[in-house]
Amino acid sequence: MNSFGTIFRLTTFGESHGAAIGGVIDGVPAGVAIDVERVQRELDRRRPGQSRLTTSRRESDTVRLLSGIMNGVSLGTPIGFVIENEDHHSDDYQQLASAFRPSHADYAYTAKYGLRDHRGGGRSSARETAARVVGGAIARQVLETVGVDVYAYTSAVGPVTLQGGYEQQDRRLIDSNPARCPDEAVAARMIEVIDAARRDGDTVGGVVTGVITGVPAGLGEPVFDKLQARLAAAMMSINAAKGFDYGMGFAGCRKRGSEVNDPFMIDSATGRVTTATNHSGGIQGGISIGTDIYFNVAFKPVATLMRPVETIDNEGNKIVLEPRGRHDPCVLPRAVPVVEAMAAMTILDMLLINRSRRL
Amino acid sequence: MNSFGTIFRLTTFGESHGAAIGGVIDGVPAGVAIDVERVQRELDRRRPGQSRLTTSRRESDTVRLLSGIMNGVSLGTPIGFVIENEDHHSDDYQQLASAFRPSHADYAYTAKYGLRDHRGGGRSSARETAARVVGGAIARQVLETVGVDVYAYTSAVGPVTLQGGYEQQDRRLIDSNPARCPDEAVAARMIEVIDAARRDGDTVGGVVTGVITGVPAGLGEPVFDKLQARLAAAMMSINAAKGFDYGMGFAGCRKRGSEVNDPFMIDSATGRVTTATNHSGGIQGGISIGTDIYFNVAFKPVATLMRPVETIDNEGNKIVLEPRGRHDPCVLPRAVPVVEAMAAMTILDMLLINRSRRL
Amino acid sequence: MNSFGTIFRLTTFGESHGAAIGGVIDGVPAGVAIDVERVQRELDRRRPGQSRLTTSRRESDTVRLLSGIMNGVSLGTPIGFVIENEDHHSDDYQQLASAFRPSHADYAYTAKYGLRDHRGGGRSSARETAARVVGGAIARQVLETVGVDVYAYTSAVGPVTLQGGYEQQDRRLIDSNPARCPDEAVAARMIEVIDAARRDGDTVGGVVTGVITGVPAGLGEPVFDKLQARLAAAMMSINAAKGFDYGMGFAGCRKRGSEVNDPFMIDSATGRVTTATNHSGGIQGGISIGTDIYFNVAFKPVATLMRPVETIDNEGNKIVLEPRGRHDPCVLPRAVPVVEAMAAMTILDMLLINRSRRL
Amino acid sequence: MNSFGTIFRLTTFGESHGAAIGGVIDGVPAGVAIDVERVQRELDRRRPGQSRLTTSRRESDTVRLLSGIMNGVSLGTPIGFVIENEDHHSDDYQQLASAFRPSHADYAYTAKYGLRDHRGGGRSSARETAARVVGGAIARQVLETVGVDVYAYTSAVGPVTLQGGYEQQDRRLIDSNPARCPDEAVAARMIEVIDAARRDGDTVGGVVTGVITGVPAGLGEPVFDKLQARLAAAMMSINAAKGFDYGMGFAGCRKRGSEVNDPFMIDSATGRVTTATNHSGGIQGGISIGTDIYFNVAFKPVATLMRPVETIDNEGNKIVLEPRGRHDPCVLPRAVPVVEAMAAMTILDMLLINRSRRL
Repeated sequence: MNSFGTIFRLTTFGESHGAAIGGVIDGVPAGVAIDVERVQRELDRRRPGQSRLTTSRRESDTVRLLSGIMNGVSLGTPIGFVIENEDHHSDDYQQLASAFRPSHADYAYTAKYGLRDHRGGGRSSARETAARVVGGAIARQVLETVGVDVYAYTSAVGPVTLQGGYEQQDRRLIDSNPARCPDEAVAARMIEVIDAARRDGDTVGGVVTGVITGVPAGLGEPVFDKLQARLAAAMMSINAAKGFDYGMGFAGCRKRGSEVNDPFMIDSATGRVTTATNHSGGIQGGISIGTDIYFNVAFKPVATLMRPVETIDNEGNKIVLEPRGRHDPCVLPRAVPVVEAMAAMTILDMLLINRSRRL
Repeated sequence: MNSFGTIFRLTTFGESHGAAIGGVIDGVPAGVAIDVERVQRELDRRRPGQSRLTTSRRESDTVRLLSGIMNGVSLGTPIGFVIENEDHHSDDYQQLASAFRPSHADYAYTAKYGLRDHRGGGRSSARETAARVVGGAIARQVLETVGVDVYAYTSAVGPVTLQGGYEQQDRRLIDSNPARCPDEAVAARMIEVIDAARRDGDTVGGVVTGVITGVPAGLGEPVFDKLQARLAAAMMSINAAKGFDYGMGFAGCRKRGSEVNDPFMIDSATGRVTTATNHSGGIQGGISIGTDIYFNVAFKPVATLMRPVETIDNEGNKIVLEPRGRHDPCVLPRAVPVVEAMAAMTILDMLLINRSRRL
Repeated sequence: MNSFGTIFRLTTFGESHGAAIGGVIDGVPAGVAIDVERVQRELDRRRPGQSRLTTSRRESDTVRLLSGIMNGVSLGTPIGFVIENEDHHSDDYQQLASAFRPSHADYAYTAKYGLRDHRGGGRSSARETAARVVGGAIARQVLETVGVDVYAYTSAVGPVTLQGGYEQQDRRLIDSNPARCPDEAVAARMIEVIDAARRDGDTVGGVVTGVITGVPAGLGEPVFDKLQARLAAAMMSINAAKGFDYGMGFAGCRKRGSEVNDPFMIDSATGRVTTATNHSGGIQGGISIGTDIYFNVAFKPVATLMRPVETIDNEGNKIVLEPRGRHDPCVLPRAVPVVEAMAAMTILDMLLINRSRRL
Repeated sequence: MNSFGTIFRLTTFGESHGAAIGGVIDGVPAGVAIDVERVQRELDRRRPGQSRLTTSRRESDTVRLLSGIMNGVSLGTPIGFVIENEDHHSDDYQQLASAFRPSHADYAYTAKYGLRDHRGGGRSSARETAARVVGGAIARQVLETVGVDVYAYTSAVGPVTLQGGYEQQDRRLIDSNPARCPDEAVAARMIEVIDAARRDGDTVGGVVTGVITGVPAGLGEPVFDKLQARLAAAMMSINAAKGFDYGMGFAGCRKRGSEVNDPFMIDSATGRVTTATNHSGGIQGGISIGTDIYFNVAFKPVATLMRPVETIDNEGNKIVLEPRGRHDPCVLPRAVPVVEAMAAMTILDMLLINRSRRL
């Protein structure tokens, strides 16, 4: 179950403090130019230690692509890749060998498998998402050849919320600040909230908004693989995700149909069918209709606090965990490239599946 | 892609106005007592025409189980079933043959397949969810043998919201009113909102809350098949669903870690590990921890209005659709058993998968 | 696991003596003309009681297609179908409730599931293959639109073997005799062998040869889903199949490379790449090369003898089974349409998958 | 499609002359002791250059396991692994950049993907099977904990055939000679045949027999995933495989039912159900019955001859390929560990799936 997708499929492996993480990207169409350096650049956006907002762990996170590409072009064969682990402070984790940290996966993994790699979360660590970013960086390059683009940004951190829909944001500003929020003023307030949490040895959650443009009409499969169902699964599989909605989302469901139905019209520029409004979020009946897809993903505050925490160990004894290691006070900025990666892989998979729906 | 699940798998077929709908339920463990009448009763809860809140279409929706059960016990072989379609007012739909109704699947299906069954939504009709209820009714009976229980209720309709978490509701009251809200006073207000919408030829959306109790710790698969990812996909595959969150959900993501972490403790009654609070919603690291799982699903207002609607046809001409046929002003009450069915099937599938994780 | 295929996928259900058998055909491309009567005609070729060579059971085996087709054209949605069971002589099977018939599935199912439907083999009955023929009849019609054709014939019954490769046979004669062997003289000897076996209350096995023409180059997926691997799985999933080989097969593996390598050449008529010989059987490296695909499937003699048989019951007691019911003395003629169906579904699935391999 | 299996699943990547090959082994149950050195030893049995019968290429084929194992015990998480490629004589392959070698995958890959890695076969090289051996070596260790054992041997090379069934062979002698045939005299004749072929710049094929003991009754899934169907797919996915049969196989299908039915009896030693004979090959109705499973896999002669070969290039021009590089004259001895690996992975997958068939 460490695979994602049907035709375009990413399989990942690796514990955070084992030898390496990596994966296999299967189903890349043949003959697509792949820029390996762009893959590394995407990975750098997710890397720890990139700003003061994120963990001070420094990992170079260098990806090595091992197959499936020759002379800069995809062969149609699987792309294997490895990212070596390098920053092993395993001693930091010794006290965790028998502890169940609150709201971590420690107890869950032990209950499931009878044992676990306690070092830094092992398989449950968000480090696994680096492999997703590699897969997404490949998917994105394939999608670009058919005009599909994917981006995401931080739209809420704690009580600070970016007002206005995605169409009111200046996408070029997203990476201009460490919060990855396209509004500089709002970003500054988000950074304050994160800094305040860190000073308190605390953490804070928020929301990432994702946008997919240029999706051709017709992607998504009735009935169980509706495009929104696939996107939801993709996003909710990211560590710390607690919620997903798309289009008008939760808020729109409180309204009347007459307020949120999207009238069809002919786009005068292209002559193609489009809608006057887009409460639908680019998907109707589980299938893309050619308008922008947009969605939100809620991420909980990081569970690891930098303060003493009472909990129990695997024998039920009460213990106190002392703060140790280096941790993000807020996962949101680094979640942005992961959301993008999952969106890109989802859309590419559905695009490839859709090619078999008509002869 | 008309299949759901890995080991326990439902495959469905059928257009709303074709000969029949139905499906195949694969992976039911052998030797489980199956009460066929309970399957029909579950189906009756989803049936149209059951109250004044729902469409006046009357369909008996009688399910016929064709295989996989002998002498009231599952054989381990697939259970095929058929529900005949009977209430064909296809004439009602003649004007829809070439129309793209706003926020319906008409245009999407045409874009994808090049043609569509225009009668009543065809495959995109929520009638397909009847097959899910059958699958869920079987899954539920299997789950009961291991102590897992699933229920859901309407927690919001338009602006009316049920206050308090699931643990504050009296489950026995859910089916006591046509809104399927466990608080009679709130239910009455929901009914008013629905009635008002109908009087206006309009519709209204809302939220269903689902609860799963008795889930053993250990269900859910890292990393892409986290339990919440599977639940999200299940719920977002239901017609009209626009959002999903679980545990503390979107609201909890605005908080600090210190506010929402769930301290571990030993349950004095059972001697087992549990948590003092349950912001996690019963899942940590993608894996159940033995506490209650709870989640919300947002449903948009029904797209079919009972008033003239301007739109375009498949040649781009502007047309006006006159209201015709019989439609729900609010899908929430009938969505409740569908949410339950999808939850039951998801949990059973994960439970069966988990049996292979240790020898 | 009652599903076959990835994109084009057949899911079946049904016990031989339950209410009905049937299935769901998913992944049929939209917009293909489907001749429903041809589906029934294919089914008639598999039907029991069609000649004196086969069982005297008479079942009309009428298929009812319930969805996925409108006005004779596929909608792209799943095609559900049901074949009612009608010829219930369940009394014939009463003595089998606790018996383990030699070389039947009785013991195997009991060991797996703890119980079984003993009536006529239940799920293990070859009656299930009727559902495959329906799926194959749909697949075949889709394949015809791209020029792919599938046929099969009986090439051996007991010691009688048809000499010469498929290219030396007159395909039009296959259905001209009850043995389904394209050589009338050989067919007559096969019929003698079958008649002799029946007179002795015995049974006899044989070989079916399958041929697929018009397959475009490029079908088949490295590395685990090589075209021959998929074909082998398809054929070996048919009841009573004991062996599969393709191209030069077992015999060719005794030879030297210089004897069996296929020289490439340009077909002067088409200007396309082809081979001077076809020991490869139309597949190289797991991928079709555009030449004819041919293969053999060995079927064991039917296990049910019409003579008293010593065996044990489910408590280990020795018992003698008296011959009862009506059974084929030789499965080969009726296996021919099943082999064709499995081949057609396999090729169509690979053809649809292949559409995603280049953008 | 570079994945094999459902619950226990191997995914592989890598071209023969790229940076590395490797894979991900998913679904290993947690808590199983894994001897990493045994994995390497299995790999050494497949390694080129191990005897004069095989290619003189020398590759150390050192596997590096990157995850999923801690302190010698499986974590239940995926085991990633890499085998670096090292013996790059890419110059040897320059003439192959545009050539279509007879009975190789060159043309097939070009037809499918529009381009190919021509160096040493790229993805179509049998080098990929090294990754299978790694997966098989892990599966084997899991299977041993439940008493299942797998082995294989060379039973035919060209015209030389080992007489007698597997139960008449001394398994301990298999690895005592480079032919991997358990009969020393027959092995000597096989070696002569291989040497003679090599002297002629030619190659020769043969048959590997596989045996699986200790399989519990109940493995295998009706109807499409019968145990023999899964085994056939596994074996036919190995490079150069042309045929598969099991139990009495092709030969037994020429006989009468009375000759090959297996009478049930109670094993006096164990008190369990068994059969007096085993023409069934340990499988009935697609499900294991607890007796030995045995099967044959036919491998064609290696297509690469060490003599000038006429063929065409990708523009249709006639060309002559000069012999170059180093190649096996016979693949059989090195196919033995691959057959074992595929058998082990197939059985383990079915064993894990079967755990969900009863509660």
